[in-house]
Amino acid sequence: MSSKKNYYKKKQQPPGTLIYTGNQTDEIQKLILTTYNKDKIIQKEINSIDEFVKEENLGIKWLDVIGLANVHSIEEIGQRLRIHKLILEDILNTRQRAKLEEYDDSLFLVIKKLYLLEDIEIDAKQISIIIKEDMVITFQEYGEDAFKSIKKRLKEGAYVRALGSDDLTYALVDYIVDGYFDIMETLSEEIDKAENELMDDPGKEILNRIYSLKRQIVFFRNTVWPVRDIANTLSRGEVKLIDQKTSYYFRDIYDHSIQVIELIETYRDTISGMMDIYLSSISSKTNEVMKILTIFSTIFIPLTFLAGVYGMNFIYFPELKWRYGYLGFWIVSIIITAAMIKYLKSKKWM
Amino acid sequence: MSSKKNYYKKKQQPPGTLIYTGNQTDEIQKLILTTYNKDKIIQKEINSIDEFVKEENLGIKWLDVIGLANVHSIEEIGQRLRIHKLILEDILNTRQRAKLEEYDDSLFLVIKKLYLLEDIEIDAKQISIIIKEDMVITFQEYGEDAFKSIKKRLKEGAYVRALGSDDLTYALVDYIVDGYFDIMETLSEEIDKAENELMDDPGKEILNRIYSLKRQIVFFRNTVWPVRDIANTLSRGEVKLIDQKTSYYFRDIYDHSIQVIELIETYRDTISGMMDIYLSSISSKTNEVMKILTIFSTIFIPLTFLAGVYGMNFIYFPELKWRYGYLGFWIVSIIITAAMIKYLKSKKWM
Amino acid sequence: MSSKKNYYKKKQQPPGTLIYTGNQTDEIQKLILTTYNKDKIIQKEINSIDEFVKEENLGIKWLDVIGLANVHSIEEIGQRLRIHKLILEDILNTRQRAKLEEYDDSLFLVIKKLYLLEDIEIDAKQISIIIKEDMVITFQEYGEDAFKSIKKRLKEGAYVRALGSDDLTYALVDYIVDGYFDIMETLSEEIDKAENELMDDPGKEILNRIYSLKRQIVFFRNTVWPVRDIANTLSRGEVKLIDQKTSYYFRDIYDHSIQVIELIETYRDTISGMMDIYLSSISSKTNEVMKILTIFSTIFIPLTFLAGVYGMNFIYFPELKWRYGYLGFWIVSIIITAAMIKYLKSKKWM
Amino acid sequence: MSSKKNYYKKKQQPPGTLIYTGNQTDEIQKLILTTYNKDKIIQKEINSIDEFVKEENLGIKWLDVIGLANVHSIEEIGQRLRIHKLILEDILNTRQRAKLEEYDDSLFLVIKKLYLLEDIEIDAKQISIIIKEDMVITFQEYGEDAFKSIKKRLKEGAYVRALGSDDLTYALVDYIVDGYFDIMETLSEEIDKAENELMDDPGKEILNRIYSLKRQIVFFRNTVWPVRDIANTLSRGEVKLIDQKTSYYFRDIYDHSIQVIELIETYRDTISGMMDIYLSSISSKTNEVMKILTIFSTIFIPLTFLAGVYGMNFIYFPELKWRYGYLGFWIVSIIITAAMIKYLKSKKWM
Amino acid sequence: MSSKKNYYKKKQQPPGTLIYTGNQTDEIQKLILTTYNKDKIIQKEINSIDEFVKEENLGIKWLDVIGLANVHSIEEIGQRLRIHKLILEDILNTRQRAKLEEYDDSLFLVIKKLYLLEDIEIDAKQISIIIKEDMVITFQEYGEDAFKSIKKRLKEGAYVRALGSDDLTYALVDYIVDGYFDIMETLSEEIDKAENELMDDPGKEILNRIYSLKRQIVFFRNTVWPVRDIANTLSRGEVKLIDQKTSYYFRDIYDHSIQVIELIETYRDTISGMMDIYLSSISSKTNEVMKILTIFSTIFIPLTFLAGVYGMNFIYFPELKWRYGYLGFWIVSIIITAAMIKYLKSKKWM
Repeated sequence: MSSKKNYYKKKQQPPGTLIYTGNQTDEIQKLILTTYNKDKIIQKEINSIDEFVKEENLGIKWLDVIGLANVHSIEEIGQRLRIHKLILEDILNTRQRAKLEEYDDSLFLVIKKLYLLEDIEIDAKQISIIIKEDMVITFQEYGEDAFKSIKKRLKEGAYVRALGSDDLTYALVDYIVDGYFDIMETLSEEIDKAENELMDDPGKEILNRIYSLKRQIVFFRNTVWPVRDIANTLSRGEVKLIDQKTSYYFRDIYDHSIQVIELIETYRDTISGMMDIYLSSISSKTNEVMKILTIFSTIFIPLTFLAGVYGMNFIYFPELKWRYGYLGFWIVSIIITAAMIKYLKSKKWM
Repeated sequence: MSSKKNYYKKKQQPPGTLIYTGNQTDEIQKLILTTYNKDKIIQKEINSIDEFVKEENLGIKWLDVIGLANVHSIEEIGQRLRIHKLILEDILNTRQRAKLEEYDDSLFLVIKKLYLLEDIEIDAKQISIIIKEDMVITFQEYGEDAFKSIKKRLKEGAYVRALGSDDLTYALVDYIVDGYFDIMETLSEEIDKAENELMDDPGKEILNRIYSLKRQIVFFRNTVWPVRDIANTLSRGEVKLIDQKTSYYFRDIYDHSIQVIELIETYRDTISGMMDIYLSSISSKTNEVMKILTIFSTIFIPLTFLAGVYGMNFIYFPELKWRYGYLGFWIVSIIITAAMIKYLKSKKWM
Repeated sequence: MSSKKNYYKKKQQPPGTLIYTGNQTDEIQKLILTTYNKDKIIQKEINSIDEFVKEENLGIKWLDVIGLANVHSIEEIGQRLRIHKLILEDILNTRQRAKLEEYDDSLFLVIKKLYLLEDIEIDAKQISIIIKEDMVITFQEYGEDAFKSIKKRLKEGAYVRALGSDDLTYALVDYIVDGYFDIMETLSEEIDKAENELMDDPGKEILNRIYSLKRQIVFFRNTVWPVRDIANTLSRGEVKLIDQKTSYYFRDIYDHSIQVIELIETYRDTISGMMDIYLSSISSKTNEVMKILTIFSTIFIPLTFLAGVYGMNFIYFPELKWRYGYLGFWIVSIIITAAMIKYLKSKKWM
Repeated sequence: MSSKKNYYKKKQQPPGTLIYTGNQTDEIQKLILTTYNKDKIIQKEINSIDEFVKEENLGIKWLDVIGLANVHSIEEIGQRLRIHKLILEDILNTRQRAKLEEYDDSLFLVIKKLYLLEDIEIDAKQISIIIKEDMVITFQEYGEDAFKSIKKRLKEGAYVRALGSDDLTYALVDYIVDGYFDIMETLSEEIDKAENELMDDPGKEILNRIYSLKRQIVFFRNTVWPVRDIANTLSRGEVKLIDQKTSYYFRDIYDHSIQVIELIETYRDTISGMMDIYLSSISSKTNEVMKILTIFSTIFIPLTFLAGVYGMNFIYFPELKWRYGYLGFWIVSIIITAAMIKYLKSKKWM
Repeated sequence: MSSKKNYYKKKQQPPGTLIYTGNQTDEIQKLILTTYNKDKIIQKEINSIDEFVKEENLGIKWLDVIGLANVHSIEEIGQRLRIHKLILEDILNTRQRAKLEEYDDSLFLVIKKLYLLEDIEIDAKQISIIIKEDMVITFQEYGEDAFKSIKKRLKEGAYVRALGSDDLTYALVDYIVDGYFDIMETLSEEIDKAENELMDDPGKEILNRIYSLKRQIVFFRNTVWPVRDIANTLSRGEVKLIDQKTSYYFRDIYDHSIQVIELIETYRDTISGMMDIYLSSISSKTNEVMKILTIFSTIFIPLTFLAGVYGMNFIYFPELKWRYGYLGFWIVSIIITAAMIKYLKSKKWM
């Protein structure tokens, strides 16, 4: 909520004003430096951007900035590393769509890392990536480090480290896009679960679940959709700083994003089908309730009338005095009941 | 309503006839002159277009015409500043879609400034902008000055003032598009509110609210949609009078307009989902009402029949004379009731 | 109906056969000649195509042929003015979509003039326009002259008359497209009216109205849709016989056609929303009716049972002999009623 | 059904195997030769492909093969006239979509002739046309000759016979596409009829009719859709063997196919609107039934209770002994009834 | 389920790690070598990739790898035949969409062979095809050999064996796409069956069947959709390794895939129409049930009231003592019933 306030407050500022619009509430910031080549890797937390600039570049130098709320510090980083003012604005505005922008000497990439919260709600963390010839700078809000396992793997040598900044970028983006499949899996399981419940015994609460799943699916789709275009652009081998050979790999990410989108579209279809089924199941139930009511009513209403008739107090009322009047009443009642049941069975209501 | 009349009246005139089709009812007009360079800024209300032409151009000269109902005056401004007749027509016809037209020595831009009225109704004010090499002319209907805060910021130096007419245009358009987010925010809150009410206890009045929100969303979408194309054109750096460097900034506006459109589409989805939920909630309620009716009916109808039977006046009616006949009646009633309840529970209706 | 017959009869003829497929039932024909330049204008009804050919061309010569049923005469006009056989076919087949065709020395344009009949039904009159270097030939069915006011304005000098055949074409097309807005206005008012009625008290008759409005909207849309493409083509300045300068004006028509289409799409949306509201309002009403029924039933059914019990004729029936039995019955009845009302209120049904 | 079997049987054969997949059950085949120039025409049924090859070519030579089930004969025709194996396969597979393929020395065109069966079901007959420089070869299943009237007209000289193979092709395709309008007309009348019935008194049977119309419309649409693309290609004047001049005429076919498609789309819209109306009419009826039930119930249930009360057998029951008790009962009953009627009228249920 | 686990497990690995994500549970692998020319064919199961490499290439050499779970072996095959690492990854990830990738010296094709399981559920088996100048390598999971009949036909000479690797590829792809028609046929029959049942007597179970068919249709569509693009690319004759002449044949596959997609879209339409019909049939039934209830209620409720009246115990109750009171009661009852029946008939409820 407070982030929303920030967000719209920004909107009333002149363009070019740096304002942070995200969820982080303190100004904590962590700078993590990684520099490596085939043989060697240095990885350490540093205290200031100065330290980063001074550190020798072993081949590729990667600065991971964790924490965006300290606008002043971000501005300083921007000045020291000569980052375009528009890029800084976009980094701090954490409500961007994923996008790719080419600048003269760098590429700028915004992408969302998705997390699935406890109550099946998707949470997005904006990752900004600046790619230069031999340098990668990433920005993320403070919190769980989005690239923890990548750093670990780099250190352990699980990745080939002889490669350029485009390969590191590929590793980062691939990791994020792979994460989409995890979300997909959980959503898929939830949808399956909801589907089964729907088939068994749909209650009102299932509708809310379906509706909430639909919202997550729509949010997911909006997030992934622009990633497809980005991956497509990067895979065409026409982007500066992305090697032809690396672009083959981005084709893979492109495939994955299409796959995710196709799954999402299928799930949207499934969910709107579930809505239909829910609606029809309510109608069916109403129909069933009505049948029972009608069965009871049509059988007993004539009988009750008959009983009412013989409860009348007319003085000249011959049947009442008959020896087998009462027995006759029951016989007539049974005949009426049998006829009604037969009629109802002919209608397939019983 | 009267504006509508004007609007359609115009339609029966030969082309080229200047007729004002907006909502302004008097002919009040205000001309505000702003001229500035890096060091100096002059800002004043002037009385006639002559004054504007005579005033020295410090670098950029901006004429803001507030009030369109005085067609004669508009025509004079057009003649003095050599504005194409078609442009004048478009300025006075306040029901244009947003559009961008390139002329030989100028750009013509129509865009809508949106306001949200009290009762969540969107009101649009048409802004026409003519951009020349060193001059910007804006037209708006009389009323709240759409560019008040921009003028204030220019004066205070919050904007860099060394830049060209394209930068001023960017500032104006950016300001208007930023305003769209404010509308979005309020609409989003209204939709959330409606959604919560819908989940809690949907009444008939909620349907009207949803329907009215849908109309606002559609109106909003129609307004923003062409802005996207305009921003896209301006960001491609191929438009005369828009510098390559400035076009980077229009890319930002393009991103924003896409973001707004995406949000709008999501809200349309949400709203049509709400319609479904509303419909299903009515069905659910009917179902529940029916159940209650059926429960009461199926339990009491047989009992009433039984009571009716023993209210009959047959003379030969053995049960009536039994010692425990009455007690027996109650026992049978309780058994029937218990059986019915069990049956209804097996159907999950109780 | 008879025109439909004609229409399909044509379809079984070899191609190239001239057959009139419209609604005109007699063979009346009127030829109106207009020729003008800056200074002078001649306007008169003529009796034969010979007269037209002989008349001096003051600058632009316009032949308006009113009445298509006389196929022989149309064929003669075609031969005298060297009109392609395919064009003649299209002129006589009054069920064309709007279209634009470029021929070697002429442009051929088909467009629909729309009229709104009393019962909110749209009627279309096909206008065929042949544009040559210094000549315009128009064809329309006999009936109200579609270009009456244009002729009047030309005569009065309301239009600049120094311009070419493309400008006259613009005037004609602009006039027709402007007419679309009048239709739009009336449809819009009808939709608003229907909407209000729908909100107040939807009856069955409103559904038919909505449905009929929908059909008009769809017909309207199909008519206007191709006009957009035509205006777009003409505004691109790449069409022979249309001057670059005039093409600016066609941009205006293009804008108008897009505006109309956008409005139509909005109305389609509105109408399908109205269908939903109608459906939900029926459900709501059924729900309300059910509630009333259920309230009465659930309150009185137990009471009626109770009354039935004390109407039984058991001999050993202690309550009947109690001093305050009857009073007790009423007390119990009131308690049951109160409990039921409380229960129903807890369900928000009362 | 048997044709379906054939169809899928084919699918398990290696590619290049010629298998007939249509409905024809015997191997009857008719070869009709037509050859003509400006002055002369020869038209006769021939017995073998040899006869065709030997016959002098007067200018254009047209072979119409009627009957496809004799695969061997088709293969022989293919060999003698040097037809590509893929074309032969497509000719025999009568479940092709309409398509146009350019080969080195010929054009290959597949198109569907549509017939409307008695029970408003559309039947499609596949027509394959091979166009060469001075020769046209057509293939159709045995049955009613699809080109009977064209042959008659050619003989009678209703068509100009001095023209090339492209003009003959135009005549054939035009004739087929014109046939679509006949189908359209009948469908349109059926839809109108269904619409009227729907408005009057919708029964269950109308739903099946609507549903069946929808299927025909969808089938129609699938058939016509590719024809549009074919006509478009042929009208662009870039296809070998189709003269620039003739391509003007194909523009006409293109217009017609668009017109048909537009009508189809309108009918689809209409039909889905009819579904909505049907649904809402059921709801309306249920609503009306409920109202009647509720009116009777709410009026009589309290009265019945009252009657029940005075039917009780309490000994101490003062009202029973009142002189005007019975009269009072009726007065109270009438008051209750009047109150209920007033209440129901306030709800607009009566 | 376990395959799903595998699938997502992969996602947390660094890129380039080979992990099998399919359903095969053991590591069985079969290598089948086929090499042939016009005159001779060798076909045998081999034990190792070495054997394959050593075997003489008669003209075209085809290695069919059946069984993917043995990742180590796949990797070895990749190394010996110089297959790009990304291709190996894609082969092992059996959840790819169909795709076509051009590499420097080879084409890589992924396509799905579909099987229809007993319970009308579609099962997909991923086929990976690598095409080189004179070699084709295919990969499939262990189980039924997808290319059994192709191998048989090759041996029997049913295919011309003088052709290149592109022709073999065509045979493989054609065989797979032909299989889609079999699936289509069965689905089509199931849909017809469901449709008939729906028209006869729709029960709840039919809804589940429709819903399940819809899912299969959607899955089918997602599978076939990318095949269309692949066939289109291959048919354009611009892909290295695919001869111009062979590309004609791929045009055939393109046609088939479009045909399948069109049928699928029609079935989707049909199915959503069935949903509507199901819903409306429930409403109809409810309506009918309501009518019966209303008929009984409206007839008997007044009668029961009347009987109740004459069951009252008022002492001053003149009618009770009338000689023909009881007879009169019946006469009045019959009149009321007749009036009610007439009324109900006027409403067309009886």
